[in-house]
Amino acid sequence: MIVRVAKKSLADTLAHVERVIPSRSSNPGLSLLRLDLKPGAIELSGSNMDIDIRARMPADVEAGTSHAVMAHVFGMVVRSLPADDVELDFGDNELQITSGTYTTKLQLVSAASAPVLSFADSHDGSMTAEGFTHALSAARYAAAVADFQAVFRGVKLEFGADSLRAVATDGFRLAYYNVDQGAGISADMIVPARSVDELVRILGEGEVKLHLGEGQLSVEHDVYSLNLKLMDGAFPDYERVIPTNFPVAITLSSTRLAEAVGRVSLMADKTANNRIDLFIKDGTATITAEGSFGRSQEELQVEQDGTDSEIALAYNARFLVDALGPVTGDVRLQFSGASSAPSVVRDIADDNYLAMVVPLRTG
Amino acid sequence: MIVRVAKKSLADTLAHVERVIPSRSSNPGLSLLRLDLKPGAIELSGSNMDIDIRARMPADVEAGTSHAVMAHVFGMVVRSLPADDVELDFGDNELQITSGTYTTKLQLVSAASAPVLSFADSHDGSMTAEGFTHALSAARYAAAVADFQAVFRGVKLEFGADSLRAVATDGFRLAYYNVDQGAGISADMIVPARSVDELVRILGEGEVKLHLGEGQLSVEHDVYSLNLKLMDGAFPDYERVIPTNFPVAITLSSTRLAEAVGRVSLMADKTANNRIDLFIKDGTATITAEGSFGRSQEELQVEQDGTDSEIALAYNARFLVDALGPVTGDVRLQFSGASSAPSVVRDIADDNYLAMVVPLRTG
Repeated sequence: MIVRVAKKSLADTLAHVERVIPSRSSNPGLSLLRLDLKPGAIELSGSNMDIDIRARMPADVEAGTSHAVMAHVFGMVVRSLPADDVELDFGDNELQITSGTYTTKLQLVSAASAPVLSFADSHDGSMTAEGFTHALSAARYAAAVADFQAVFRGVKLEFGADSLRAVATDGFRLAYYNVDQGAGISADMIVPARSVDELVRILGEGEVKLHLGEGQLSVEHDVYSLNLKLMDGAFPDYERVIPTNFPVAITLSSTRLAEAVGRVSLMADKTANNRIDLFIKDGTATITAEGSFGRSQEELQVEQDGTDSEIALAYNARFLVDALGPVTGDVRLQFSGASSAPSVVRDIADDNYLAMVVPLRTG
Repeated sequence: MIVRVAKKSLADTLAHVERVIPSRSSNPGLSLLRLDLKPGAIELSGSNMDIDIRARMPADVEAGTSHAVMAHVFGMVVRSLPADDVELDFGDNELQITSGTYTTKLQLVSAASAPVLSFADSHDGSMTAEGFTHALSAARYAAAVADFQAVFRGVKLEFGADSLRAVATDGFRLAYYNVDQGAGISADMIVPARSVDELVRILGEGEVKLHLGEGQLSVEHDVYSLNLKLMDGAFPDYERVIPTNFPVAITLSSTRLAEAVGRVSLMADKTANNRIDLFIKDGTATITAEGSFGRSQEELQVEQDGTDSEIALAYNARFLVDALGPVTGDVRLQFSGASSAPSVVRDIADDNYLAMVVPLRTG
C-alpha cells in the first residue's frame, strides 16, 4: 500500500502528534505512533495517558490497514526528507519512506502494540478556538508546578450556558479569564496544566468542537482530535478569597512595571521568595530589592487612587511579573487594606481578566 | 569617582569579558571582574587561567583607582539597564549603577582579590583578523573533545615568515588551513581549542597584533587584549600520514553531500561510530546506513576521476559532515587505494583547506 503526501504537511502535523508521545516510557507501547490507513485519509495517533491525539491527513488511500512505528524515529526521518513529496510504502514488516533520491526502510510494529484509542464522533457544542485559547493561556501560568497538591497543577474550566471561565491557582496566586461563549456543556472540570499547554500549541483559528465524556474532555479542531483526561479532586473555593474592597489602587503601563520589577529583582534573594518591596505614596511607586549581591531600586510615576494612603507590601517578583503577562496595555493594581491580604491585578482594557497575588509576610 | 558610558557599548564589551570569566570556580577570585579606572579609560579584565582578557573602554576618567565585582552579577545588571546611558559611581565599598529611573548598589571587592594580570605592551607583528579567524575556524573542529591526550585538544599554529597554518587532529581526522600572511613570529605553538573558540568570537574585522611571550601568545584586537596560555607536548607529525596518491576522486556540491550524509546517518548506529557506508561506481555515490531502527540510502550523481575503479568505504558520519563544513561550494573527495587509508577532502575553490578522515575498519 503506497501513500503519497506533502512533506511539509506531514512534518507539521506529525510535530504536534509527536510532542504528545513520550520519547521514553516504561511502557514501550506508549512510544509508538499508530498509522491507520482509512479510505481517503491516513490517521496518525498516539497518547501519553493524559492526552490522546489523532491527526487525520487527507490522502489517496483505498484499503484499510493499521501499523505502528517508533514515533520519534519516524519524526526524525520525516523532518530530514529532501524533497517536497513523500511516498510511504507500507510493507509487511517495513515502511519504506522515499523522498527525492533518499530512501529509508523503518521497522513496522504491529498496531496491536500501540495504545487503543477511541475518539468522540459527536460533540456537545462548539466555540471559537481563539476564545478557548485566550482563556486557557491567560489563566494557565498560575497553576502550580510539581510538589503541590494535584488540583493545583490543573486548570479549572467552568462551562456555563453562555460562558466559560478558565481559572488556576497554586494557593499563593490566582488567575482567571472569562469568555462570553457557551460550548453546549454546563459543567466544571479540571484539566492538567501540561495538557493545556499542548492544547494551546495545537489550537489555531476557526472552530473548536467539544464533548464531555466519561472522565475526559474531547476536543476537535482542524485535523486534530484530542481526549484530555480530567483530574479528580475538589478545586478550592477561590471566589471567597478574592478581595473586593481596595483602599488604594494604581494604574500604569503593564510592560514598564514588569520590566522594572524584573530589573530590580536581579538583586532579590532567590532563596527568600525572590522578594521585592513595593512602596506607593503620592503617585510614586518605588520598587526595591536587597540580597547578598547588593541592593536595587526603581521609581515609577503612577496614577494613584486613594492618595491619602500609603502602601508598603512585599511580593515574590516572579508572581507579580507572571500576573502582568497577559496585560499588554495599562494595568490596574488594587491593594487590600491589611498587608497580608491579596492584591488584585486587572487589565484596564479587558475586564475578563483577573489575577490575584498574595503578598509575602514581612517583619 | 563617577564614570559615564553608553549602555550598549558596556554591555557588548562586558559580554566578551564575562564569557571568559568562570561563573563558578573553586578559586573565588577567578569569578571576579577587575575594573581599573585609568586616565581616559575604564579597563575590564578577568581570566579563566587559560585566557586572560582585558577590554579598554574610552571614558572621561581622571584619577586611577582599581576595584573588583562579581562578574556575572555585574553583567546581569548591565544587560537589564533601562536607559541608553549608565553612570558608574565607585564608592569605598559599593558600586552604584544608575540608568534612567533604576539604581543598583553592588558590593565592591578589593582589586587585590582578583587575578593579577599583565598584558603585552609591544607586539612582534600583525595580520588581518579575517585571515587569522578563517584559519582558526577551518581547523578547530578536528580537535578532540575531553578524554583524549592533551595536545589533541589543541589547535597547532605554525607561524612562518610569510605564512600561518592552523592544524588540528584527534587521531581519526585532521584539518588544516593555510594563510599567506606572516605576523612577525616564526614558531610553532599549540593553543587550547576552547581558547580558540573564545578568540574567534572576539575577533572582528581589522588588524590583530600578536606577541609570543613566555608560554603564552598575546593577541591585541580592537579594544581587547588577550593572553592565550600555550599547551606543552609534542603535536603529532601529521604530514607524513596525509596520503598523496588517490586512485579515485569525486567532485560534488559540499552542501548536498553533507545534507545527504546527515539524513542517511539518522539510521546509523550511534554506538557503532555512527557508521555510514559510501559506494562509488560509474559516477554515482551511494550512501547507506543501517541500525536497529532500519536502513536508509541516498544516491548522488558525482563527477568521478578514475571511473574504472570502485570505492567501498565506511566513515563516522559526523566526521565526514564536519570535514565538509568549511567548504561552501564544490568539494573534492580523494580516496586512497587501501580501504583503511585516509581519505582527503579539498575545497575546489580554495586550496588552502585540507581535511583528512580515516575510514572505519570494516568486516
